[in-house]
Amino acid sequence: MSYARMSELYAPALKETPAEAEIASHRLLLRAGYIRKTAAGIYSILPLGWRVVQKIEQIIREEMDAVDAQEMRLPILQPKELWVESGRWDAYGPELMRLTDRHERAFCLGPTHEEIITALVASDVRSYRDLPFCLYQMNTKFRDEMRPRFGLLRAREFLMKDAYSFHANPADLSAYYERQAQAYGRICDRCGLTWRRVDADSGEIGGKVTAEFMALADAGEAEIVFCDCGYAADAEVFDGDLCPDCGRSTQRAHGIEVSQVFEIGTKYSDAMGVRYLDETGVEQPLWMGCYGIGITRMVAAVVEQRHDDDGIIWPTAIAPYGVAVLPLGDGEVAASAARIAADLSNAGHEVILDDRFDVRPGVKFAEADLYGWPLQVIVGKRGLAAGTVEVKTRATGVRAEYALSELIGHFPSSTANGV
Amino acid sequence: MSYARMSELYAPALKETPAEAEIASHRLLLRAGYIRKTAAGIYSILPLGWRVVQKIEQIIREEMDAVDAQEMRLPILQPKELWVESGRWDAYGPELMRLTDRHERAFCLGPTHEEIITALVASDVRSYRDLPFCLYQMNTKFRDEMRPRFGLLRAREFLMKDAYSFHANPADLSAYYERQAQAYGRICDRCGLTWRRVDADSGEIGGKVTAEFMALADAGEAEIVFCDCGYAADAEVFDGDLCPDCGRSTQRAHGIEVSQVFEIGTKYSDAMGVRYLDETGVEQPLWMGCYGIGITRMVAAVVEQRHDDDGIIWPTAIAPYGVAVLPLGDGEVAASAARIAADLSNAGHEVILDDRFDVRPGVKFAEADLYGWPLQVIVGKRGLAAGTVEVKTRATGVRAEYALSELIGHFPSSTANGV
Repeated sequence: MSYARMSELYAPALKETPAEAEIASHRLLLRAGYIRKTAAGIYSILPLGWRVVQKIEQIIREEMDAVDAQEMRLPILQPKELWVESGRWDAYGPELMRLTDRHERAFCLGPTHEEIITALVASDVRSYRDLPFCLYQMNTKFRDEMRPRFGLLRAREFLMKDAYSFHANPADLSAYYERQAQAYGRICDRCGLTWRRVDADSGEIGGKVTAEFMALADAGEAEIVFCDCGYAADAEVFDGDLCPDCGRSTQRAHGIEVSQVFEIGTKYSDAMGVRYLDETGVEQPLWMGCYGIGITRMVAAVVEQRHDDDGIIWPTAIAPYGVAVLPLGDGEVAASAARIAADLSNAGHEVILDDRFDVRPGVKFAEADLYGWPLQVIVGKRGLAAGTVEVKTRATGVRAEYALSELIGHFPSSTANGV
Repeated sequence: MSYARMSELYAPALKETPAEAEIASHRLLLRAGYIRKTAAGIYSILPLGWRVVQKIEQIIREEMDAVDAQEMRLPILQPKELWVESGRWDAYGPELMRLTDRHERAFCLGPTHEEIITALVASDVRSYRDLPFCLYQMNTKFRDEMRPRFGLLRAREFLMKDAYSFHANPADLSAYYERQAQAYGRICDRCGLTWRRVDADSGEIGGKVTAEFMALADAGEAEIVFCDCGYAADAEVFDGDLCPDCGRSTQRAHGIEVSQVFEIGTKYSDAMGVRYLDETGVEQPLWMGCYGIGITRMVAAVVEQRHDDDGIIWPTAIAPYGVAVLPLGDGEVAASAARIAADLSNAGHEVILDDRFDVRPGVKFAEADLYGWPLQVIVGKRGLAAGTVEVKTRATGVRAEYALSELIGHFPSSTANGV
């Protein structure tokens, strides 16, 4: 492994706060060069932002593996005919982006993929022996928001993980739905999010069991009521002061919905006529669940929860780099810093070296906090003479001296979750 | 690590040859359940196909790291205004897919991203100190082909890696262009492709130096002339029998273009008015290179080159699984096969166990060859009694007996390229 160099990294920091950014995550992701706006609700994700996305994707991949879901890729262009069959071509409204090809055939850009996956499954699944299974993708989705805003929180083009499971009966669907929901909790935990699961169940069979995973944040667009005992509800559904489960006082927050899981039931298999043959040779409808996580939305939600006036405070698990090495000078100081960066990198840490010679120490410190590096190793002339470096923990602001000879041994494992 | 099970894998094999498939890669990728058609030129990539894509992406990532390129993500939706600026909105023709949003603003679906990246760079790069750099993405691209065909070879929605480099002067661009071209050769090698580099250089400065990387295949849409000495040219440019470099006889083949590299020069920075300040404070145009690889096209090209009448012959480096374990029976045979799969998996191999109890050995053999597993470990009752298993190498068809106790030690490393 080798380390990255600030002098080569494409992560242009902005000195000014961008005028259009109303909330912290939008402001900081722009200022620290994680994203750039291309058009309203449409963003380029720069290398640092992309590293965060890739880390979240890898966490999702591991947790989906653990619940036997298989990764694949569905097309973005979806034929109108499938959406007419499901009834959503008319129902979806202006948020569905539509176009025609050179032969005047109509398509939409997928906001979700229930139609596509149901049509796919219809052509290949015939028997109870083929069930159950769960397929998922991490792909770009489109939703033509009337008023896109808040950067990655309410974008028109965004990354989403969507999973679809198929079952022989509602009991099997319910059991798997709960496995997915548990996996979603682990994903939120591993991304460093403070979250609540808000269940909803109207009692009807098919399509009405659902849960939202809400990140607690003032910038959220939904209000939730929650209790220390684990109870949580949408404030539009439960508006009381005392927890209905344990009777204690509830708390409130403007939640960010980072994911949602559904027991869809037979809505799409009925609409699209998808059937399998059961053990007795009788045709039965397929039972379906679907499970979504906003990946780019997750990036924004974590920053909403983890920042201060100086910048972003990444949990190590999804930080673009876990450790930054900041030399305060050139010559021997720079050479020692490069050796430290190489040693930490060889020990399995993801390291970035601030090797810029034309940048003052004060700017290096400020930008290290802005970018949000979890651990910052500060290498100075005086310390080196005494055989020490200073290590700053971004989350606490605490600085501690370490003997150079002991630095590697004292560092947390790079796979540690959070700092 | 754990191994995969055929009984759970979503890879529906087709018994019939799909009527619309004219060439081997299209036919085999459909038959072996790697892809499914959603609409003309639009495919879903099923789990096995997606594993191949991910392996190719990882090879690309490693080779791009080696030439200091940084991964990021550009938007698919591109505003019309940028394409009007570059002159391509009118020039691109009906292959450009266009749409309007709910506010009647026009966009296209990116076939390439020169406009977007030039506009991005324009907002952040000001000084010679910021140069050079190279950014790349692996993203879905769109081209509304008049006659999409050949499956992943000529699709309307496809995966492409596109890189863009920016330089202070043409000499720096040329040097980096050659580094990218060398990386492209390594990528083709690692994917197991037999290929030729076809250079073209009209001699004009800016925008005319280019090379294509052609996979040799009968199903290709271009004819190339090449020689053992390394010379290669498009048959439309050089149509002679004797190599102009060494005088020997040339050979011919219908090549598949899997990638192309360009020294674009200042075309986009001129059109879009992008400048940097040089060491003396004078405004200068940015010099640009761009470098594309068709990722899904690469999948098809490899299958075109590596198949026989029975199915696909994957090189290990991009096979969905490197080793298949095929138990010929249940009970003790199945239990032993599961142990062998676990042992191989723990030794670092990517293993799939054909644990289907209701499938005859003949079908297992035929499907193992169809899917293209590079190494197939056949576990039978008689062999087990003698403490042996049979190992078939897909590429050669050779079967050899191995003592169970020596199996792991004799297997090639899972990181070995090809078999």
